[in-house]
Order: sequence, then C-alpha cells, then structure tokens
Amino acid sequence: MEQLNREQEQSKKSKMPTGDQQDVEAQLIEIVEGINAAFREKDIEKIMSYYAKDVVAFDMMPPLEFNGVDSYRKAWQIGMDGMSETGPFEDAHRHFHISGDLAVMHSLCHMTGTLKKNNQKIDSWARYTGVFENRGGKWLITHEQFSVPIDMESEKAMWNLKPEKGMMQ
Amino acid sequence: MEQLNREQEQSKKSKMPTGDQQDVEAQLIEIVEGINAAFREKDIEKIMSYYAKDVVAFDMMPPLEFNGVDSYRKAWQIGMDGMSETGPFEDAHRHFHISGDLAVMHSLCHMTGTLKKNNQKIDSWARYTGVFENRGGKWLITHEQFSVPIDMESEKAMWNLKPEKGMMQ
Repeated sequence: MEQLNREQEQSKKSKMPTGDQQDVEAQLIEIVEGINAAFREKDIEKIMSYYAKDVVAFDMMPPLEFNGVDSYRKAWQIGMDGMSETGPFEDAHRHFHISGDLAVMHSLCHMTGTLKKNNQKIDSWARYTGVFENRGGKWLITHEQFSVPIDMESEKAMWNLKPEKGMMQ
Repeated sequence: MEQLNREQEQSKKSKMPTGDQQDVEAQLIEIVEGINAAFREKDIEKIMSYYAKDVVAFDMMPPLEFNGVDSYRKAWQIGMDGMSETGPFEDAHRHFHISGDLAVMHSLCHMTGTLKKNNQKIDSWARYTGVFENRGGKWLITHEQFSVPIDMESEKAMWNLKPEKGMMQ
C-alpha cells in the first residue's frame, strides 16, 4: 500500500487542485470514510444520512438497481447483518472530478472482515464509483456503483484481484 | 420497454432541464449510441475516439481497472472479437447529472448478440455509469463502470436480471 499511497499523492499534486477543490475532495473522503466507520459500528441511520433520498445505486448484490434511500437501506442492512466483524477502511487510486455542485470520486477499495454464516474471512478489492451533489451546502451521494470483475469462463466473481501495478497496464 | 420509455420521459420532464442541459444530454446519448453502433460495425478506432487518453475504466472483465485508452482498447478488442453478431442498442432508466464541464450518465443497458465461441445467444441487462468531461468543446469519457450483480450464494454473475418495475422497489 505504501507505493499506492505515494502514487495517489503524486496524482493529486499533478492536478494542482485549487483550495476549493482540495476542500471538496476532503469532504468526499470524509463521507466515504464516515460510511465505513458507521458500517463497522453497525449504525444504519448514520450510513443512510450520507445518501440523497432519490439515490440510485448499482450494488454488488441484486437487484439491478436500488431506487431511493429506503430501498437501498435494505441492501446495507443485509450486508451489515451478514458480517460478524468488519476490518478497517482502505482504498487506492482515488480520482476526483469536481465541477460546481457535482462531484465524482472513484477508487479501488479493500473489503475485509468475517462472514457470520461460515466464519469465512473476506479479503477482496472492489471498484467504487460515487456521484455526489451539493444540495443546500451538504454533499450527498446521489448515485454509486460497486462491483468486482467477472471471470468470463467460470462466470464467477473474481474476489482475489489486487491493485498491483502490473495488473493495470 | 414501452413502459420504461414512458418513465424515462417523465423523469426527464420532472427535472425541467434548461436548453443547455438538454443539449448536453443529447450529446451524451450520441456518444453512448455512437459507441454501440461502432461496436456493431467492429470499428475500434471510432469507439476509442470517444474516450479521454487518461480514461480509467472498471469493466465487466478483469483486471480491476484499465488505466488509459491504450490499455482499455484491449478490452474492447477482446469483446469485439468474441462476438459473431451484436444486437441493437437499448437502455433504460437513464439519469443525467450535469454541471459545467462535468457530466454523469447512468443507465441500465441491454446487451444482445451471439458469442463466437459457442454460438450462445446473449440477452442480458447490465448497469452503466459514465463520467464525461468537456475538454476543448468536446465531451469525452474519462471514467466508466460497467457491471452485473453477483449472486452471493453461487458467487456467479446474474445475467438474467431484468429492469422490471417490481424488482426495483
């Protein structure tokens, strides 16, 4: 991760963000890290407070889409109920796109923890794209997509991929 | 699809887009439909012309991410080579987020065609999130994510989901 973090810093520097942009980036990171902390603390109300009421989410689990925060809450609750323990937050290769009241953050994120049903340890990297809107001074998530690639032969989810430099060229 | 299209129209109307917004939406739709047409015509140069050089893509196939247009071109080429015939483009539940030179479109998209290796027909709905930047007057895709949900028991890709109203509540 040390190498990834260095790259991340360099990527930020090369974009020479303005003060405003840095401020928005910090707020988006606070949201994503806030959700992860609330997930570990099993605080569903806190998690949902980061989402717009009309959020449309493409989650790793079905259905194809969750329309609205009440629908999406069920997915979070299932995810939360399925874990006996959740590891600390880590992500890599963060990219930001910010313009006015619209922002996008995408990254690779490391999911760790233990499944309640069989005590199986999880240790997987997934892909995250979050779309944020500033509504009345508060940034809210209005859309997100979260997935892992599929092995086209076995048609199975690829839980064991890692964001190593060599893989991404 | 008739019902979905009506919903789509209603969703557009309820947002009361300005002339500018409608114009940008039309340009984004042109890009997405242009890519699909070029895919059917097996015109890889045309497809890649819609992407920024520094695009970061999270595709349905591995690796976790494709960094840059040269890397992503290989994924498109593999997808193109694997199909003997590709069906017409269809998507549903389009949503747009536009601010200045940044735009996001997400939708459910219908993939149809025939796999070359075994003559298997494809008829699947997937989720698409595209991030676009206006650079020098031209909208380019700077990020996209494309996925299907995973069945958490079998860990297999769910190719048979459909965007029916009842599924999304």
